[in-house]
Amino acid sequence: MPSHEIDVLQYQITQEPYYQPTGNEVALYEAAYAERLPVMVKGPTGCGKSRFIEYMAWKLKKPLITVACNEDMTASDLVGRYLLDANGTRWLDGPLTVAARIGAICYLDEVVEARQDTTVVIHPLTDHRRTLPLDKKGELVNAHADFQLVISYNPGYQSLMKDLKQSTKQRFSGLNFDYAEGAVEAAIIAKETGTDEDTAAKLVKIGATARNLKGHGLDEGISTRLLVYAARLIKQGINPNAACRMALVAPITDDADIAATLKHTIDAVFG
Amino acid sequence: MPSHEIDVLQYQITQEPYYQPTGNEVALYEAAYAERLPVMVKGPTGCGKSRFIEYMAWKLKKPLITVACNEDMTASDLVGRYLLDANGTRWLDGPLTVAARIGAICYLDEVVEARQDTTVVIHPLTDHRRTLPLDKKGELVNAHADFQLVISYNPGYQSLMKDLKQSTKQRFSGLNFDYAEGAVEAAIIAKETGTDEDTAAKLVKIGATARNLKGHGLDEGISTRLLVYAARLIKQGINPNAACRMALVAPITDDADIAATLKHTIDAVFG
Amino acid sequence: MPSHEIDVLQYQITQEPYYQPTGNEVALYEAAYAERLPVMVKGPTGCGKSRFIEYMAWKLKKPLITVACNEDMTASDLVGRYLLDANGTRWLDGPLTVAARIGAICYLDEVVEARQDTTVVIHPLTDHRRTLPLDKKGELVNAHADFQLVISYNPGYQSLMKDLKQSTKQRFSGLNFDYAEGAVEAAIIAKETGTDEDTAAKLVKIGATARNLKGHGLDEGISTRLLVYAARLIKQGINPNAACRMALVAPITDDADIAATLKHTIDAVFG
Amino acid sequence: MPSHEIDVLQYQITQEPYYQPTGNEVALYEAAYAERLPVMVKGPTGCGKSRFIEYMAWKLKKPLITVACNEDMTASDLVGRYLLDANGTRWLDGPLTVAARIGAICYLDEVVEARQDTTVVIHPLTDHRRTLPLDKKGELVNAHADFQLVISYNPGYQSLMKDLKQSTKQRFSGLNFDYAEGAVEAAIIAKETGTDEDTAAKLVKIGATARNLKGHGLDEGISTRLLVYAARLIKQGINPNAACRMALVAPITDDADIAATLKHTIDAVFG
Amino acid sequence: MPSHEIDVLQYQITQEPYYQPTGNEVALYEAAYAERLPVMVKGPTGCGKSRFIEYMAWKLKKPLITVACNEDMTASDLVGRYLLDANGTRWLDGPLTVAARIGAICYLDEVVEARQDTTVVIHPLTDHRRTLPLDKKGELVNAHADFQLVISYNPGYQSLMKDLKQSTKQRFSGLNFDYAEGAVEAAIIAKETGTDEDTAAKLVKIGATARNLKGHGLDEGISTRLLVYAARLIKQGINPNAACRMALVAPITDDADIAATLKHTIDAVFG
Amino acid sequence: MPSHEIDVLQYQITQEPYYQPTGNEVALYEAAYAERLPVMVKGPTGCGKSRFIEYMAWKLKKPLITVACNEDMTASDLVGRYLLDANGTRWLDGPLTVAARIGAICYLDEVVEARQDTTVVIHPLTDHRRTLPLDKKGELVNAHADFQLVISYNPGYQSLMKDLKQSTKQRFSGLNFDYAEGAVEAAIIAKETGTDEDTAAKLVKIGATARNLKGHGLDEGISTRLLVYAARLIKQGINPNAACRMALVAPITDDADIAATLKHTIDAVFG
Repeated sequence: MPSHEIDVLQYQITQEPYYQPTGNEVALYEAAYAERLPVMVKGPTGCGKSRFIEYMAWKLKKPLITVACNEDMTASDLVGRYLLDANGTRWLDGPLTVAARIGAICYLDEVVEARQDTTVVIHPLTDHRRTLPLDKKGELVNAHADFQLVISYNPGYQSLMKDLKQSTKQRFSGLNFDYAEGAVEAAIIAKETGTDEDTAAKLVKIGATARNLKGHGLDEGISTRLLVYAARLIKQGINPNAACRMALVAPITDDADIAATLKHTIDAVFG
Repeated sequence: MPSHEIDVLQYQITQEPYYQPTGNEVALYEAAYAERLPVMVKGPTGCGKSRFIEYMAWKLKKPLITVACNEDMTASDLVGRYLLDANGTRWLDGPLTVAARIGAICYLDEVVEARQDTTVVIHPLTDHRRTLPLDKKGELVNAHADFQLVISYNPGYQSLMKDLKQSTKQRFSGLNFDYAEGAVEAAIIAKETGTDEDTAAKLVKIGATARNLKGHGLDEGISTRLLVYAARLIKQGINPNAACRMALVAPITDDADIAATLKHTIDAVFG
Repeated sequence: MPSHEIDVLQYQITQEPYYQPTGNEVALYEAAYAERLPVMVKGPTGCGKSRFIEYMAWKLKKPLITVACNEDMTASDLVGRYLLDANGTRWLDGPLTVAARIGAICYLDEVVEARQDTTVVIHPLTDHRRTLPLDKKGELVNAHADFQLVISYNPGYQSLMKDLKQSTKQRFSGLNFDYAEGAVEAAIIAKETGTDEDTAAKLVKIGATARNLKGHGLDEGISTRLLVYAARLIKQGINPNAACRMALVAPITDDADIAATLKHTIDAVFG
Repeated sequence: MPSHEIDVLQYQITQEPYYQPTGNEVALYEAAYAERLPVMVKGPTGCGKSRFIEYMAWKLKKPLITVACNEDMTASDLVGRYLLDANGTRWLDGPLTVAARIGAICYLDEVVEARQDTTVVIHPLTDHRRTLPLDKKGELVNAHADFQLVISYNPGYQSLMKDLKQSTKQRFSGLNFDYAEGAVEAAIIAKETGTDEDTAAKLVKIGATARNLKGHGLDEGISTRLLVYAARLIKQGINPNAACRMALVAPITDDADIAATLKHTIDAVFG
Repeated sequence: MPSHEIDVLQYQITQEPYYQPTGNEVALYEAAYAERLPVMVKGPTGCGKSRFIEYMAWKLKKPLITVACNEDMTASDLVGRYLLDANGTRWLDGPLTVAARIGAICYLDEVVEARQDTTVVIHPLTDHRRTLPLDKKGELVNAHADFQLVISYNPGYQSLMKDLKQSTKQRFSGLNFDYAEGAVEAAIIAKETGTDEDTAAKLVKIGATARNLKGHGLDEGISTRLLVYAARLIKQGINPNAACRMALVAPITDDADIAATLKHTIDAVFG
Repeated sequence: MPSHEIDVLQYQITQEPYYQPTGNEVALYEAAYAERLPVMVKGPTGCGKSRFIEYMAWKLKKPLITVACNEDMTASDLVGRYLLDANGTRWLDGPLTVAARIGAICYLDEVVEARQDTTVVIHPLTDHRRTLPLDKKGELVNAHADFQLVISYNPGYQSLMKDLKQSTKQRFSGLNFDYAEGAVEAAIIAKETGTDEDTAAKLVKIGATARNLKGHGLDEGISTRLLVYAARLIKQGINPNAACRMALVAPITDDADIAATLKHTIDAVFG
């Protein structure tokens, strides 16, 4: 039988996540949180958006509820639904409602994947009302004073079919993210994997080349995450060349020419 | 277990919402309400339509039930449905039915998002009948004498795919809204955020420039709401330039050229 | 808990609805009803089709069951469905089945909105069989001797995607409706709103101009209903000019040129 | 609570339906039935296909189960489904299964409306197997010796999107139907309505003209059913001219030119 | 209440089906069965694919479970689902699971009609694993040693939209079927219907002509099944000419020219 | 009644699967597993991807849970759902949740078939979080230390409509697979079927010819699996020529020219 009480503690970030600021984003976020402004974090795949929010939740000591958005997500998945019980139907709050009640930061990851019109349910939470009407339950939830809404958004994805509506966008303040500059990214890789700085620098060099191919055969550049994968395989004793092919080439392209270009770069860097 | 009684008090607006009239809209609305004419409020995102309705509900001392419309909303979401109970099925009124029974103002926000044909259920409530047939329950609800229906509508959105049918439109009287004139808008910003009048005026200046870009790279201009966001970030000690980029640029465009134009304007205004 | 018995009285029209005949439509309908021929009432939005059917139901002293058709309506919404009860499933008749059992006039409003193929369920009720098979219940309902089916249909709406099938159309006799002639329409407005005849005549004049714009920027002309709205706002003390803009311009067009033309007409008429 | 037993008697045709043979169709059908060959009856709207099947069921003294096919019909609607009961789920046979068990003629009306692939469920009933697998129940129903399957089909409707598959068609023998020849059709109208032969002949003349317009502005000609409607209105004392406009013009066209042509024909015939 | 035990005997073919081999297909199938290779039987409508499988099931003394595939078939329809019982939910095996448990030949008829991706559920049953994971039940079924999977496939149907995926096709061995040669087909018709050999030969001649029209106005030729229908109508005393029109022309074409060509052939053959 | 406990033992691979390494894939996989990196195995149909994962699960002594992905698979099918029980609803973990709890390798076969956005649920399991939020249950599952996610992917399939999103791809390391080189493939066939080496070599020769037709009339080459099928039919005494037509031609093409080319190759090789 499902538990009748939400376990709030599970949403607290207990350990400081590793996060390397690259500008004034921490101060900007703190100001937005102080005003409880909704925040939109924008940027390419794997540049650290989710980890930044986790870091801020840890820093602000607020619970964090993350929802991976997808096309099949209905408003009920966010808001809640009735379940059938031995005593009849019982209402189960969805993650957005839980966040509004307990005063969590609610992070809707890849919100552009959700049906445009499902996102309408967040509107009354993002203006002066700060309420969430549970129409099916006949209840109007007033958000907890600590509640804040955050969404992530990858500008490279949106299209005519999938974009946020202006009436949604205009409810958020925004922070732009990108991959870290060379030296910072190398430091991140070295710190996270324990690899030597020379290897980390070489991996960053390969990443930089691949990011230049974006729009010329690659949909996106190689993310910091994949560079970390390569470093971890090297740490396990795999030859750098093979590790890079496994972590940096195979996952991101099926095109023989692009793959050859990437392998050529790897060979040039690791000799 | 869901409550069997609707809590009417939760729909009463207990505090006067801040609203700055810009014309004769209050008198027009009062006349329409006196005749119980359905009202359509038209205008761009974030110009204050929802707050106006909230203000009128407060002024008229009527409960207000707001429904954020979306494409996935079914007639049952408006009208009601059967829930399963320990003793079998139990009918739960939807928000439109609740409003009709208790004599509330029912505000269907962004009605153009609802499926065109779902809106058909409001027809018998908007002519001389003032009834709502609950076909699935075999009941015909006669609307309370205080009931009124209001819808909002953003003319910039409708398209061949999404527009209200004439047979729906011709059941409403209409009120046009737009962003407030410069001085009024600055006063609104200053009043709402406690920022100084100089900053407010500068923000309004940036807003005016952006609204000229509508149709030339921007789908909509910058709303008053976003100008308020910028003012609140500045109040938190954020540099005006950074605050404007966070509140006025990042959320509304992914286009590098448009963003550059907006940042140029910000730099010109805030020096 | 839903009632097990249908309350027939609620479908009786107890007060004579105001209806002003414009031709021989009353006699034609009476003959069709005497033969129990299915009737299709055709005409533009707001010209009085629904009220005519209400008037005839009152005149013939038959209960009237109205169903507002829409794209999401399933055959079950018309015919009935099983509900879950403390003792298992229980069948609930839909409005069409109720009408067939109690001998009501069943009025399917805006039938062209229903899915073409859902309308197939009315076929056996509209030929010599006069039966309604409840396939899911294993019952064949023989229609009450007083039962009659009526549908409304707006010729201006149908398209390749939405039109009745010939095999449906050829089960109906038809009555064409249009807006009333000038003097008659002015009398209707004066009678319904208590406004003076001069104002009513001026409103009719504005309506006539707008109806000439149909197909030249307006999808439909201004309905009698909207002229009545304007008269009611004027009765509430609103300036005729402002009342006409609210009732006759704002709801029906978003086009600045068309709106200007209409406002020009209003100014010309009301000075 | 739904009845646990099917009432077979309700499917018996107790009174001889009026049917006027126009060729050797009765003998052909009897031979097909003797061999239990599935039969496809083809022809335009309202030419008497359904009534012919009713007549044959009466003549052969077999129960008749008619299903009006539509796009939303699922295989479960034909075959059956589980219902929830006080003691758990209970299987309810669909109309096709009932027909197979009791040895009825099962008539799938307008089968071309059903989803192409839903029709696959009839395949094992239409070859040497004569079985119906109820996959969801784990039962294989052997059809009663008297069972026969009949479908109707309007060749004017099928399109690339909606046509029977060859693997379905090739399981049927076929009978072509059309409107009756002039004298026969007049006799049918006179017999069914009690109108005089002169009026009937005039109506048939109008029908013949309209049928020549098929493909030249009319999707289908005027069916015998509509001619009968006109005769019945005339019998009620309505002027023939007005009766024809109501029964023969309004239901079948919204085109002013076509309507004028039809009215001209009516005037020419009835003077 | 549904039975808790599958009645295995109902799937045994107790009488030898009439099947006339036309090549080495019996030996090939026996070898494939000995190796439990999945088999795909390919060929046009009504050429005897289903009967061949029935014959082989009889010859091998294995139960046969046939599933008529269709577009609306879900994986649950094949694999099984939970039903609600007085004591809660109860799992009901689908036909594929039943076949895997009892060691039946499972025959998926017209598999190309099933949603491409639904066919994925058969993959683990068609490689070295011979397992069927019931994800919803948390059970992994190991197929009975006698289990074999067979699918039928009509190459004339597949299109860009509907074709089996290579990853499905490459799990099957294949057998091609076609209509029998003239003398063999005549013998089949005479044997099945008891008609004289002269009539059978004449029908085969008509069939041969029609098959030449395939691709020139006919989607498929006339199947052996339809020739058998014609012979059965003739046996019932129907004139051969009329019987052929009913069985060979009406069901397969709505085109007047093609129908005329076929009737001309019939007249030429039967005089 | 469904079992309340998952039987973990059923997911253990108890016998060493036959797998012939063709490069350093075993070492690369072991390194990826040591780091718990998600792995994507890429390659054409039937080249041994699934068997490789089975082999690695056996080698690493970890349970393996395989899910055959398909378009109709919902997030609930992966994650779990509520079932109705005698005591109300009860949560049933889906295969992904089971794998995360017990520390299994979860293998999503043909992941490209799943709806793009359903794959979003795997995101939090594939980054530093290694968590799986069960939104509907209000529980956050921390993955077992042994858990690893593996997906298979056939580059020949993806299209504009069906491809993994970059934000999914960039969470995986990748291993490319292809058919084995000639001598190795012949050894595999001989080992698996017990056929003589000469026959195996001849089959490999036919396979090589067919793989050259890929993109020139064949969507994919002949897989090793089909060559094994041919060898097994030959072992059953079927003439090699007939065995190859049944196993290598009929299943993979409906094109007469391509079939003729393949048969010509078979005749040339087997004489």
